[in-house]
Amino acid sequence: MKTSAGYMKQRLEALHRNRLFEAAVITIILVSALLIGARTYEEVSRFDRIMGVLDWAVTIFFLIEILIRMAAEPRLRDFFRDSWNVFDFCIVVASLIPIDDSEMVLLARLLRIFRVLRLVSLIPELRILMASLFKAIPRMGYVVLLMFIIFYIYGAIGSFLFAHINEFLWGNIARSMLTLFRIATFEDWTDVMYETQELYPWSWIYYLTFIFLTAFVFLNMMIGIVLQVMEKEARLVDEEKGEGEAVEVHHIHENMQALQAQLDRIEARLESSGNKPDP
Amino acid sequence: MKTSAGYMKQRLEALHRNRLFEAAVITIILVSALLIGARTYEEVSRFDRIMGVLDWAVTIFFLIEILIRMAAEPRLRDFFRDSWNVFDFCIVVASLIPIDDSEMVLLARLLRIFRVLRLVSLIPELRILMASLFKAIPRMGYVVLLMFIIFYIYGAIGSFLFAHINEFLWGNIARSMLTLFRIATFEDWTDVMYETQELYPWSWIYYLTFIFLTAFVFLNMMIGIVLQVMEKEARLVDEEKGEGEAVEVHHIHENMQALQAQLDRIEARLESSGNKPDP
Amino acid sequence: MKTSAGYMKQRLEALHRNRLFEAAVITIILVSALLIGARTYEEVSRFDRIMGVLDWAVTIFFLIEILIRMAAEPRLRDFFRDSWNVFDFCIVVASLIPIDDSEMVLLARLLRIFRVLRLVSLIPELRILMASLFKAIPRMGYVVLLMFIIFYIYGAIGSFLFAHINEFLWGNIARSMLTLFRIATFEDWTDVMYETQELYPWSWIYYLTFIFLTAFVFLNMMIGIVLQVMEKEARLVDEEKGEGEAVEVHHIHENMQALQAQLDRIEARLESSGNKPDP
Amino acid sequence: MKTSAGYMKQRLEALHRNRLFEAAVITIILVSALLIGARTYEEVSRFDRIMGVLDWAVTIFFLIEILIRMAAEPRLRDFFRDSWNVFDFCIVVASLIPIDDSEMVLLARLLRIFRVLRLVSLIPELRILMASLFKAIPRMGYVVLLMFIIFYIYGAIGSFLFAHINEFLWGNIARSMLTLFRIATFEDWTDVMYETQELYPWSWIYYLTFIFLTAFVFLNMMIGIVLQVMEKEARLVDEEKGEGEAVEVHHIHENMQALQAQLDRIEARLESSGNKPDP
Repeated sequence: MKTSAGYMKQRLEALHRNRLFEAAVITIILVSALLIGARTYEEVSRFDRIMGVLDWAVTIFFLIEILIRMAAEPRLRDFFRDSWNVFDFCIVVASLIPIDDSEMVLLARLLRIFRVLRLVSLIPELRILMASLFKAIPRMGYVVLLMFIIFYIYGAIGSFLFAHINEFLWGNIARSMLTLFRIATFEDWTDVMYETQELYPWSWIYYLTFIFLTAFVFLNMMIGIVLQVMEKEARLVDEEKGEGEAVEVHHIHENMQALQAQLDRIEARLESSGNKPDP
Repeated sequence: MKTSAGYMKQRLEALHRNRLFEAAVITIILVSALLIGARTYEEVSRFDRIMGVLDWAVTIFFLIEILIRMAAEPRLRDFFRDSWNVFDFCIVVASLIPIDDSEMVLLARLLRIFRVLRLVSLIPELRILMASLFKAIPRMGYVVLLMFIIFYIYGAIGSFLFAHINEFLWGNIARSMLTLFRIATFEDWTDVMYETQELYPWSWIYYLTFIFLTAFVFLNMMIGIVLQVMEKEARLVDEEKGEGEAVEVHHIHENMQALQAQLDRIEARLESSGNKPDP
Repeated sequence: MKTSAGYMKQRLEALHRNRLFEAAVITIILVSALLIGARTYEEVSRFDRIMGVLDWAVTIFFLIEILIRMAAEPRLRDFFRDSWNVFDFCIVVASLIPIDDSEMVLLARLLRIFRVLRLVSLIPELRILMASLFKAIPRMGYVVLLMFIIFYIYGAIGSFLFAHINEFLWGNIARSMLTLFRIATFEDWTDVMYETQELYPWSWIYYLTFIFLTAFVFLNMMIGIVLQVMEKEARLVDEEKGEGEAVEVHHIHENMQALQAQLDRIEARLESSGNKPDP
Repeated sequence: MKTSAGYMKQRLEALHRNRLFEAAVITIILVSALLIGARTYEEVSRFDRIMGVLDWAVTIFFLIEILIRMAAEPRLRDFFRDSWNVFDFCIVVASLIPIDDSEMVLLARLLRIFRVLRLVSLIPELRILMASLFKAIPRMGYVVLLMFIIFYIYGAIGSFLFAHINEFLWGNIARSMLTLFRIATFEDWTDVMYETQELYPWSWIYYLTFIFLTAFVFLNMMIGIVLQVMEKEARLVDEEKGEGEAVEVHHIHENMQALQAQLDRIEARLESSGNKPDP
């Protein structure tokens, strides 16, 4: 059975690599996604039947495709080692859950909507994009921690000073931090400031230092990331160039030493032959 | 007739290249554009007559210019192959449509306004700018698709959770996506959040994850583009340098091998001549 | 008299270069600027007298300094050729205008405030910064023109479509362009959109295309500028490196040719000497 | 005693370098920080006792750690020379202040909250981040001064023109500058403009020039910083490469001169030996 699964897999991969087929699958996913969106809006029944059939066709195609890929692996465990496979499996299973209950129909629709995420694993360019996004996460981790500390300290001070002015905005540290995030996005931050300025006219210092601090840290984070990207880039360029110029320079260096050895031999010979005819 | 059209075209191009004439045409287009804008404001009759005449002069100049360019082409089809020609043709035709109907006067004015777009095909620097903008579109295509998926998933969840709270903002996926775009631009997003927080106090997670996700993807897109631009730049710099140092290093390498060959010959000659006087 | 002016100028320049004196002048300008700001707030009379004296001292110092610099030039015309000198002259003259009229006292204060601009010509780092800002202006000229065309076209469409909905926002092209600038800064843009959406539900297309277009052009402008800056940088780095490695490679290339000439001579000599002992 | 302190210090450093222990300390600080935040919200008593004990354990650990570090220094003055040590000392002392007064309990809690700052000196990556942030401050100093001058001039004009329209926003230079900062963050800036436009319809010039000026200066600042970072980067890359290619090129150059000297000797010998057999 495994060989037939392997054969099926090969044919499936050929189908996958077929640009036209891929475009058709992507189109069906996008159109059915948009239709589900439209269905909550008003009853669109024109393309409904055709799309319903195509929609089921895609679901079944995905089901068959994933089953074949699972069968092609020597062991089932290997299949689940690739996180993209787990991702695909979850989406296919979720889109298969049969919910006929009228109350649950919305949840069923929501689950079907997640099928649009299969686009990410289907389109190679999006996979690369996602991979580069995941790579960027640790790079940002410490900056996020530093930001959290700034938010926490300012949140503590804010809830300590302003809690009695506006319970909703500054009631506790959590609320204060949410208000500070609002201030960091410049969203009606002056309304918040004008309110506290009535009691504490100097509270603008609190807001302005916070805005400058977060903007400053964010700016430096940006520059830091650009710098890191550039460093990698420069290294790659260097390696690439290494195959050209640097290698050639190295060859010249080696040849030079060979030349020197040769000249040494010539000089030695001349010395011995020059001495002989002398007497 | 074609030769005379060719001759006219040459003279026209000379006129085009004349900096003063170009500046005059640009000034007339800009002033007439500003006058049309002002006319909807209040009746400006001071420059009106002079500008009216100049305006017609520009329209007729454009008409003649395009007719000559069309005549200069061996076949009319060739003229319409260049998208800038099609662009110019549409604008000139649109500015010629005679609408005297009092009701349509606004539409006529609107059509005349599009003539300002001819500035783009007139000024070479703007043509280059537009070309570089068009080149950037595919580069952004997949990021836009990824953004659409994020907006779609969050829109689906939003309309599922919050539709009964505010029909206007979250009534269906389309409306939810528009609201999410509003949130992504930080436009009164806390008003939207505070409303849903009354029922779902934890809904801030929905908003903050969305903001972080879109900001994160956008930031990475920016960095990705800067990286791509840098890569191209580095390649160009490399090629440029190739003409200087790398070429010289290559010459040295070749000369070195010639030297080695020459030394081999010298050594061989010394060996033969050195052996003969020996006995 | 000119030689004494030249001598005075030398001593003044020595004073200028004195870091402590410079810091004192900057401090006095800043403090007096802040005091003028405070005076419109409430009567601050504590430092008032001391600062008033120091303020007059700075004004008189500037007057004397500029007079000496003018006297030191062979011709007065030469002095006004440097735009920084004209700039300094205008500020000094403006701060000297005696206005005792009680009604004009505010205007007089405003003129005195402009003296803070002398900081720009006083501090070398700010002069460099200003020079680099002025250099950047032509670089942005064409992008601003392109932006103007986009704003103009959208403003024309906006005033044509929405003028009857809100006369204040869309009454004419000028008003529409101001409203569009507001939308480009994301300032309560949804309020504007929701209003027009009541009559034209599809008007979100107008707003979203405008936002994407301006953001896209702005982003590309940014990248273009970074690219230009990088190009210059790369050229500078190249030239700098040229003094090191490239020069050395060039020397090696020249030495190589000298070596080859020498080897040719050796080979020729060996041939001639090798042929003689043969017979 | 000093040697035992030194030994203790060694063991402490080993403990510090222990990844698990570090993670535990960071976790306790973060959880206790979050708990203090939660405590102002509602009485969370579940983890309270355990966390209270762990919290005291961390405080005592920090106290012991800092005492040992102080004892390990030959002189106490040396300890306070490192600003990180002063920073740690202040935080530890602040977290030790015993406040049992019910009224001061909030202040005591606030002081305890600052202990989260110890994370910065504990985590090496954050220390590096902080150091790079401090390095960036002088680089931004002159841009901030230029910004201040722009804000001050516009603030003076604003308070002069608009003070009678809205005392709250434009009452004096300080208030005007705060309002201008609000405008620079695009926060409801059109509300401010529409108000002044009623009296001065041309006041949009004031706002637009200000927005363009600040955005322009900010953009150039960004580019300037990226340029500076790139310059440093390029220098580092150069030095790194210097160890590879440039050094090799230099060696080739030196070998070349040795070769030339050797060839000179050979030629001289050939000349002398070639002359002898001639006659």
